Amino acid sequence: MGIVITAFERSPDGGKGLARDTRVRWALEEAGLPYEVRPVSFRAMKEPAHLALHPFGQIPTYEEGDLALFETGAIVFHIAQHHAGLLPDDAGARARAITWIFAALNTVEPVILELVTARILERDKPWTAERLPLVEDRIRDRLTQLAARLGDADWLDGSFSAGDLMMVSVLLRLRPSGLLDEFPSLAAYVARGETRPAYRRAFAAQWAVNAAPPVGG
Amino acid sequence: MGIVITAFERSPDGGKGLARDTRVRWALEEAGLPYEVRPVSFRAMKEPAHLALHPFGQIPTYEEGDLALFETGAIVFHIAQHHAGLLPDDAGARARAITWIFAALNTVEPVILELVTARILERDKPWTAERLPLVEDRIRDRLTQLAARLGDADWLDGSFSAGDLMMVSVLLRLRPSGLLDEFPSLAAYVARGETRPAYRRAFAAQWAVNAAPPVGG
Repeated sequence: MGIVITAFERSPDGGKGLARDTRVRWALEEAGLPYEVRPVSFRAMKEPAHLALHPFGQIPTYEEGDLALFETGAIVFHIAQHHAGLLPDDAGARARAITWIFAALNTVEPVILELVTARILERDKPWTAERLPLVEDRIRDRLTQLAARLGDADWLDGSFSAGDLMMVSVLLRLRPSGLLDEFPSLAAYVARGETRPAYRRAFAAQWAVNAAPPVGG
Repeated sequence: MGIVITAFERSPDGGKGLARDTRVRWALEEAGLPYEVRPVSFRAMKEPAHLALHPFGQIPTYEEGDLALFETGAIVFHIAQHHAGLLPDDAGARARAITWIFAALNTVEPVILELVTARILERDKPWTAERLPLVEDRIRDRLTQLAARLGDADWLDGSFSAGDLMMVSVLLRLRPSGLLDEFPSLAAYVARGETRPAYRRAFAAQWAVNAAPPVGG
């Protein structure tokens, strides 16, 4: 009963690893689970067959036998809950690691999504140049708080967990903006995540699908 | 070993039930658990004692003996995982209910938060009148997809679950905007949540703290 996930047939980021399937690939690699990837085109993503799997017409989805899930956070949590390597055994530490999954997705990512919206969906709007600094300052507020909590620790709560996997993945979205580099301890935290062998394998796998082929030759 | 949560000493919504402690109160009421509330002032929320509990200086938090959690999604999930009434027993149905918790928080709430940002934080900005329709259309897109999935069912996946609790709570934030009423099946879904005895008790409890006393007399 193999695991099948969906991913962009062609990621909008050209292979930078920012599409959400990378988060699921990373979790599967940390857990040492083999998986197959079914690529989905932008057109197919909005068609009934895919909407039956994912009501919001996005990727990734997760299928394993009779079970079909959507929503990256839920998929990563599902993998973490059923396999070793992503959540501590101690009940309290486990609850705190799960807290960081939610914090990454519901407290840190929303302010970052506003930046993505401003830079992409509202790129050509007359207000965007003047509005961007406000959006960026709201991100800085959150990163200041996150950096204060992280302190000089390697990970958010003891050993690496699915909470770190999600927080690193969310913060990675900021790298193109330069904002992450304003917070050296968070930039180092993200880099620490990226050096994990499981992350490297996940990144390489999505790169192989998405990176533009070399010109010429 | 009692449960203690934090809530606004005085909620910015004046008791409409939109502050996030209502979500946790609702989950505790569904599970039939007694709890105490420790009110926190806006000033105290940003001070070291509260930041030690909640790194982002928000409410609610959850304490039970040695365990201290923050982040509404994590708290509701913790309650749901350890007590009957909020998650189905069947493993697949349980994973799908958890999926809806994440979908409410990471796919539906972020577009709604953009509306809150526009209407409150950017209320006086010159671009806001022209920008609001774009923000509202992004919400309409998500609600159209959500309504398509809900169909004429009472709840998102079988019986009421923590996933519905969270989705109803997120959608409630839209009521003041009038957007929810554009989707009659979702408005009815939210109303269905509000008629649950556990929700009524949670609402009444936060109302007792936050509602302005009658003038005069």
